[in-house]
Amino acid sequence: MAFKLELFLLLSTLAFASLLDRVRAGDPDITSDFLVPPNVTSVNGTFFTFIGLRDIFLSAPPPAFKATKASLAEFPALDGQSVSLAILQYPVGSVNPPHTHPRSAELLYVLMGTLGVGFVDTKNNLFTQTLQTGDLFVFPKGLVHFQYNCDPDKSATAISAFGSANAGTVSIPGTVFNTSISDDVLAKSFKTDIATIQKIKSGFAPQP
Amino acid sequence: MAFKLELFLLLSTLAFASLLDRVRAGDPDITSDFLVPPNVTSVNGTFFTFIGLRDIFLSAPPPAFKATKASLAEFPALDGQSVSLAILQYPVGSVNPPHTHPRSAELLYVLMGTLGVGFVDTKNNLFTQTLQTGDLFVFPKGLVHFQYNCDPDKSATAISAFGSANAGTVSIPGTVFNTSISDDVLAKSFKTDIATIQKIKSGFAPQP
Amino acid sequence: MAFKLELFLLLSTLAFASLLDRVRAGDPDITSDFLVPPNVTSVNGTFFTFIGLRDIFLSAPPPAFKATKASLAEFPALDGQSVSLAILQYPVGSVNPPHTHPRSAELLYVLMGTLGVGFVDTKNNLFTQTLQTGDLFVFPKGLVHFQYNCDPDKSATAISAFGSANAGTVSIPGTVFNTSISDDVLAKSFKTDIATIQKIKSGFAPQP
Amino acid sequence: MAFKLELFLLLSTLAFASLLDRVRAGDPDITSDFLVPPNVTSVNGTFFTFIGLRDIFLSAPPPAFKATKASLAEFPALDGQSVSLAILQYPVGSVNPPHTHPRSAELLYVLMGTLGVGFVDTKNNLFTQTLQTGDLFVFPKGLVHFQYNCDPDKSATAISAFGSANAGTVSIPGTVFNTSISDDVLAKSFKTDIATIQKIKSGFAPQP
Amino acid sequence: MAFKLELFLLLSTLAFASLLDRVRAGDPDITSDFLVPPNVTSVNGTFFTFIGLRDIFLSAPPPAFKATKASLAEFPALDGQSVSLAILQYPVGSVNPPHTHPRSAELLYVLMGTLGVGFVDTKNNLFTQTLQTGDLFVFPKGLVHFQYNCDPDKSATAISAFGSANAGTVSIPGTVFNTSISDDVLAKSFKTDIATIQKIKSGFAPQP
Amino acid sequence: MAFKLELFLLLSTLAFASLLDRVRAGDPDITSDFLVPPNVTSVNGTFFTFIGLRDIFLSAPPPAFKATKASLAEFPALDGQSVSLAILQYPVGSVNPPHTHPRSAELLYVLMGTLGVGFVDTKNNLFTQTLQTGDLFVFPKGLVHFQYNCDPDKSATAISAFGSANAGTVSIPGTVFNTSISDDVLAKSFKTDIATIQKIKSGFAPQP
Repeated sequence: MAFKLELFLLLSTLAFASLLDRVRAGDPDITSDFLVPPNVTSVNGTFFTFIGLRDIFLSAPPPAFKATKASLAEFPALDGQSVSLAILQYPVGSVNPPHTHPRSAELLYVLMGTLGVGFVDTKNNLFTQTLQTGDLFVFPKGLVHFQYNCDPDKSATAISAFGSANAGTVSIPGTVFNTSISDDVLAKSFKTDIATIQKIKSGFAPQP
Repeated sequence: MAFKLELFLLLSTLAFASLLDRVRAGDPDITSDFLVPPNVTSVNGTFFTFIGLRDIFLSAPPPAFKATKASLAEFPALDGQSVSLAILQYPVGSVNPPHTHPRSAELLYVLMGTLGVGFVDTKNNLFTQTLQTGDLFVFPKGLVHFQYNCDPDKSATAISAFGSANAGTVSIPGTVFNTSISDDVLAKSFKTDIATIQKIKSGFAPQP
Repeated sequence: MAFKLELFLLLSTLAFASLLDRVRAGDPDITSDFLVPPNVTSVNGTFFTFIGLRDIFLSAPPPAFKATKASLAEFPALDGQSVSLAILQYPVGSVNPPHTHPRSAELLYVLMGTLGVGFVDTKNNLFTQTLQTGDLFVFPKGLVHFQYNCDPDKSATAISAFGSANAGTVSIPGTVFNTSISDDVLAKSFKTDIATIQKIKSGFAPQP
Repeated sequence: MAFKLELFLLLSTLAFASLLDRVRAGDPDITSDFLVPPNVTSVNGTFFTFIGLRDIFLSAPPPAFKATKASLAEFPALDGQSVSLAILQYPVGSVNPPHTHPRSAELLYVLMGTLGVGFVDTKNNLFTQTLQTGDLFVFPKGLVHFQYNCDPDKSATAISAFGSANAGTVSIPGTVFNTSISDDVLAKSFKTDIATIQKIKSGFAPQP
Repeated sequence: MAFKLELFLLLSTLAFASLLDRVRAGDPDITSDFLVPPNVTSVNGTFFTFIGLRDIFLSAPPPAFKATKASLAEFPALDGQSVSLAILQYPVGSVNPPHTHPRSAELLYVLMGTLGVGFVDTKNNLFTQTLQTGDLFVFPKGLVHFQYNCDPDKSATAISAFGSANAGTVSIPGTVFNTSISDDVLAKSFKTDIATIQKIKSGFAPQP
Repeated sequence: MAFKLELFLLLSTLAFASLLDRVRAGDPDITSDFLVPPNVTSVNGTFFTFIGLRDIFLSAPPPAFKATKASLAEFPALDGQSVSLAILQYPVGSVNPPHTHPRSAELLYVLMGTLGVGFVDTKNNLFTQTLQTGDLFVFPKGLVHFQYNCDPDKSATAISAFGSANAGTVSIPGTVFNTSISDDVLAKSFKTDIATIQKIKSGFAPQP
């Protein structure tokens, strides 16, 4: 019976720890040097290290645009530190579709290649630029932005810094056309007909 | 000559004041009771009053969805107070297209009618609800959301509260399809062809 | 015995969860799309909906001033979203007594009727205004303010927006005269005699 | 004429600087080491020093309760540093009347004597304590609180720390009864008659 | 066996509470009047009182510089209130070595004696001042600063206020020379030889 | 004379603009999409682009450790966006000496080579790690940290992200030993003799 009780205890503790995770508040300054998740029992240099990006340039280049994140979910030591990173890989002809980060601006640094970038402010002004290797571009917080490889022959790579441990990503195409928002609402919103909406939606359907 | 110099002085002061406005920082707590713009010389109860919404329900109902804001731009006394409002009017069949507010959550209260509402989180989950008169719905900060009048016979009205004096609005359809982002980038982003992108864009073109 | 222990476990978990609730930190930006309380096991559109105000205008009008809140306590989805609302009802001759909201400014919109409003800043200046239906007034954060129905014949209704999920209310009359602060301290503070203090206190005593 | 113009220039610069002061935003973290007001042209150790409290204990003790502040207004180097202090002096029998600080909690340290202290939370609970020399008490942010010398024979002194450069003070008696809020509103708010309100108000009138 | 299980329960609850403590977020505004730790079951005036400094001036003066804190760790009611205090005692000839507070500026008030103080900004400017009894000095947030008793005959005492419940202290000498950072790294950093580094380190070694 | 006055005007405007810059508040959320400095008259994509790092890897490698920043000072579009970057170059045998960033954590990504890294928390615990190419390490906000190239044959390069537009750097060796803090204060602080302090200081003296 002790075994059963101790099991119950363990499960209830684990369940509770996951609940705890959900109520934990945000990116504001913390009142300790760093935050440690409940399931981490010993803290040393390894806790502050993330090796998940180590092999990113050793593997074969991705066939399509790919963003690899080092944010709160992948690297818990970022909790409360208000910073995260992502590596962005753009094969020839690829696009990082229009999206927003609800919780941070993005500061992009072109490691390799040439990128076309743009964002739209809340007054509907489009700001664009062509970036060379070594250039930086800042996408202001919460605005729709995109990038694309504008060199017809070479892939491109960038690293982006965020001022939040969990900047979040709202990808516009998938958010709008791959979430069962009704065709009628979308047709009216995009000032078009239902057939056009359905045509776009079909592009996001699972391919046979 | 004195006149010319004093004019120059005046103009340079005014120009400078407007620049000052642009560098003013945000919605965080202020260290005074309230903030007064440089051009306001006397402060009394009227400064804290906004009458721009007074006639909204007396005028003829709008022919299409209409949002009337009382935010920092319309009501300067909101500066530093982290709150604003908007009145939303939905004629029969109308839609408030998918959009985000980069700087605030939205708390919508249905004053009249019936609304269908929805938002999509950063994991691409769609949350929807049908709201009756008197219901409240909260759209979390920075996420794409929309509303539509779902009563075939009656117009609807809502009032929305924001936790920022200038929540900002990024309207997805206009941001994406009415800002000269290249057809090619959009076609790739929305997994469709250029003809479809051009068809959608044409809906936003000025009508002859 | 197992039963007793499991009961103990359950109670201790529940007790702990409620304590947890008390240590949860504030209204600052969160690092997730939204926060879910530990006791909520499934999240859909209903979680983001509050129907507690639905019948407010269908019931008989209240006999005295009444504030009905939709804040963190009543509507848990507001947690971390920095916004809340209240409906304020003013029968003829009624007053919303001087009070402060420690955690937010208040943006009041007159839905119906005519209101006299006022607030006092930290330099002891009184700002007042008479508001018509459709007018807005902003009460800056943390300052003492009040409203009263100034139409001798018609009741009034307002809706107030707050830039915090839990703005809090410090009602001055009850805080000062209905909490057993000593008569002597109050007499000295209000520059009057103990008899006057006791007379005011008696107004708050339970009526026989 | 040059003199007149330069005078105009000087006056306009001073006027503008004071406007600047009014639009300056708050206590949040700054992005520089410290902030310097426009009128300060050279910064050395003296800028970070405040000598205005130097003689406070050398002068004759005040005849009534007295608070001497070192906050943003008196000590400009505090701008953006989120901290300030006040020295509080309580002659025998004196009271620091009920008040709130809209922008900070208060941490009071009794330097000399014995103080009775109390505060009321937003659920109308009164918390009181008798403090000895060397004791600390924290008054939570935005709540109504008071102190009084509870030793019949000895004066008391305290030092209070605030987590804002400009915590602000809303003194309840003066705010409510010394600002021309109408007798009718106050009588209804305090559940008493107009004669009682007028009696209290008369205590605040200028003495002949 | 029940005993063993209950003991396990108790220990696991305590362990969990300590974990909870580690994940608690910061000094930003809270959405309640105050925060109560999980282990506190009843809250009255005593919870908001700290008596740990009561006897500080009654005991024999310390033989070396001594800082006695009233911060989050010693006084849990400070949680979420963004303020704390410390009493600083400087015997003749003593120094408070160069240090930083990562989470707050420091506002120092000289209670007794004469202090030399200084800080260095991020452009490597040193700001110094000699403070008399009653003087205040503000050390900006996060910068290296120090104080020393500059009266050859009298001890000095100060009280420091912080705008965080847990300002934290990084003492430079101990951080750099008493933590096993390699001699080689330190020699290169301090532009000196390994022998000099080892000489300094030896001063921090436990004395036989 | 007009010339003289206009010159005076121009100079006073420029002086004032620089003062303005100094009073601009911080990294908190802004209430506009982005902030534009007073001297920028037209805003297009170039304003959001920084090309100052473009040639960093094309030039000859630096002879000593070198940090090249893209922060608020170099890239004004970062104002209010709470993010910045730096490129760090470590020749063989070089060290980035112990330092703190008062306004941000640092997230370091090793672009090339092998780095030894470490930081010390406020409880004087040293956390160290050896990082390979592609590894990330987070240095918590405000704590003393350092890096060194630990490969005897190859130079190393890293890119660091900060959650502030102006993280600031307090370099410990220069702050302590190259700013005229008195030898006596330093000798007492570092528990050593004045000769040793002078020896270290001499390493920072201008070389003949």
